[in-house]
Amino acid sequence: MSARGIAILGSTGSIGCNTFRVLEALGPEKFRIVALAAGRNVAKLVEQIARHEPDLVSVENDDVSGQLKAALLERHSKVPRIATGEQGLVQVATHPEADCLVSATVGAVGFVPTLRALQAGKRVALANKETLVIAGELMTRAARQSGAEILPVDSEHNALHQCLRGETSAEVRRIILTASGGPFRRHDKAAIQSATVAEALQHPTWSMGAKITIDSATLMNKGLEVIEAHWLFGFGADEISIVVHPESIVHSMIEMVDGSVIAQLGVTDMRHAIQYALTYPERHDSDLPSLDLARLSSLHFEEPDLERFPCISLAYRALRTGGTLPAAMNAANEEAVQAFINEQISFADIPQIITSVMDGHRTSDVTDLAAVVDADRSARASAQLAIAQLLHDSRVTGVV
Amino acid sequence: MSARGIAILGSTGSIGCNTFRVLEALGPEKFRIVALAAGRNVAKLVEQIARHEPDLVSVENDDVSGQLKAALLERHSKVPRIATGEQGLVQVATHPEADCLVSATVGAVGFVPTLRALQAGKRVALANKETLVIAGELMTRAARQSGAEILPVDSEHNALHQCLRGETSAEVRRIILTASGGPFRRHDKAAIQSATVAEALQHPTWSMGAKITIDSATLMNKGLEVIEAHWLFGFGADEISIVVHPESIVHSMIEMVDGSVIAQLGVTDMRHAIQYALTYPERHDSDLPSLDLARLSSLHFEEPDLERFPCISLAYRALRTGGTLPAAMNAANEEAVQAFINEQISFADIPQIITSVMDGHRTSDVTDLAAVVDADRSARASAQLAIAQLLHDSRVTGVV
Repeated sequence: MSARGIAILGSTGSIGCNTFRVLEALGPEKFRIVALAAGRNVAKLVEQIARHEPDLVSVENDDVSGQLKAALLERHSKVPRIATGEQGLVQVATHPEADCLVSATVGAVGFVPTLRALQAGKRVALANKETLVIAGELMTRAARQSGAEILPVDSEHNALHQCLRGETSAEVRRIILTASGGPFRRHDKAAIQSATVAEALQHPTWSMGAKITIDSATLMNKGLEVIEAHWLFGFGADEISIVVHPESIVHSMIEMVDGSVIAQLGVTDMRHAIQYALTYPERHDSDLPSLDLARLSSLHFEEPDLERFPCISLAYRALRTGGTLPAAMNAANEEAVQAFINEQISFADIPQIITSVMDGHRTSDVTDLAAVVDADRSARASAQLAIAQLLHDSRVTGVV
Repeated sequence: MSARGIAILGSTGSIGCNTFRVLEALGPEKFRIVALAAGRNVAKLVEQIARHEPDLVSVENDDVSGQLKAALLERHSKVPRIATGEQGLVQVATHPEADCLVSATVGAVGFVPTLRALQAGKRVALANKETLVIAGELMTRAARQSGAEILPVDSEHNALHQCLRGETSAEVRRIILTASGGPFRRHDKAAIQSATVAEALQHPTWSMGAKITIDSATLMNKGLEVIEAHWLFGFGADEISIVVHPESIVHSMIEMVDGSVIAQLGVTDMRHAIQYALTYPERHDSDLPSLDLARLSSLHFEEPDLERFPCISLAYRALRTGGTLPAAMNAANEEAVQAFINEQISFADIPQIITSVMDGHRTSDVTDLAAVVDADRSARASAQLAIAQLLHDSRVTGVV
């Protein structure tokens, strides 16, 4: 059998780089890179291109494209076809030689290209959870129609996929997502509300990008995962639970109707989930560090605190309401998190802004792409307005 | 579909009584009792017969049979056919209307009847681990030839069976049996060696019969389970690990070649495993208490201490050598444990006696039943000799 073709959206990010490490460990006879998309990290992209010689590469814009070409020529590396923008992302995602797309861009930008890959019948190893949050209905419908598989790379959903092997969905009582609890698990409400950006970026167990790390601090990340789990596995809001598990060793669990609980455990290394998503239904040998339970010594579990972490309830509300509300919530969250990182708003403002956007959103059905794009745009505009208002208020009162 | 017929060996023991509770919860339209075998607990047997009206019942001997008949007549209960002895056990195990045999006698007595049930193509829900330890080769061969299934009721093996659903054996790196560690987990060597019967009968998490509780204190129970796991799932001694987990919540785990670990968790109630073994491949609703991880709060793991618990190494040695040695080890263990319960020997003498019997055993292949029966008998004789010698020595020196 010839090597399977791989395309990557977000090749220079955390998941992208780990995908390369997995592919290199598995060897070129199993997988080969055919197309890559990244934003503007030219230095890293040059390394990846020189090493894997993809057919096609897409970057953010013509500026970056020019820099990339120059850097490759200077290095005497083979220059691939280079595309840009959303069209470039779609070209990478639907590259005819790609059997599998690793969809690992952050935020809503990965949505359209990932949908196109599913429509083209490609396996999607999905690390971009927003894709399912904003348009899970369109994504899963496209996958059903083309016969494409969605393999989750998020460690929790990857764990659930593993737990569900050999089980019947109708015999599952509920699925249980574990949450590290984030850096503020033991902080009181006042300390959380006044948390700084630097504090929020200290994730206890996983090393990830800035946006997802802030989402882990608000626990919105877990809220997004609840919606993601709904679309991936078909369970309703009442059948999806969250348990805080600070060691992040049990990646998630399922509880069966007979009371039995099946859990997937592993070290906190994304390469496990990436490899599983690429090789499924097979499992391939891996020299990744294995779990040493005796050395680990103890695992803890506790209920999530919905009062200190209101984003969890916002996500359940979005899932229960359905339609375009999850897309609006996600857009508001992206804007609020960016404003927090820019030190324009406080940590406590994040759920406030999302709440106000959700309260003002007129939910409609997700009939097509346009409905989602509209919801996304109007929610971003509302969020920006709310952020501007906060900035204005803080200038007036002198409080940031 | 009509109700499936169930036969039970050891109906008045701990597993037997829990089987009744499971069957009563599932309802008579799913399962009905057709045959029961018990030793001499007439009072309990009368209750079971009055309630379930089996066609056939077997007891230890004619004395007990007479008592049972009298008790049933006095109660104006319908009197079933009554058999006795090993022949009675075989009749129960192979009852033509039984689809499934729950094999839950303690010790070697369940061996022949369970083998006959497998030869007759019946599903065996196996709680009698000695059966596989002494003659796993014969048992699994019989099952393969008739197409019978062996469903383990031991919580650890039941957990492994659940973890292995949907997985490929060749992709399993190792299986990991959890052990509570028994009542002496934190005792030093001297305290363990001088442990009293009362101390050894205090199991921290499971409520079971005396013999298996002593086996849990010596950790021979875990050693027997290693051999049992070998026969049930086909893994070698180097692919079977033990981890001590005092809470007994994680019932066992498998580690895949890609480093992923799948675990089965549940409350410490045998009814879960019994129900699973009866209903597999389906899972039926259960109102048994479900696992409340957040209330549980923490799970601990540690390496087993082979020096304080030498029985573990004895079992690995028996598995590696194979042939009749596991049967000899099991027989020596049964004799030694009984002598300990009778306060004839000390706790530290148990592994000593087993070691001396194993050292003196001439291992042969398990070609047929006779080879196993011979090994069992000669090992018991050697163990009795060793016990008598110890008694003699202690009388001479005045030390018990």
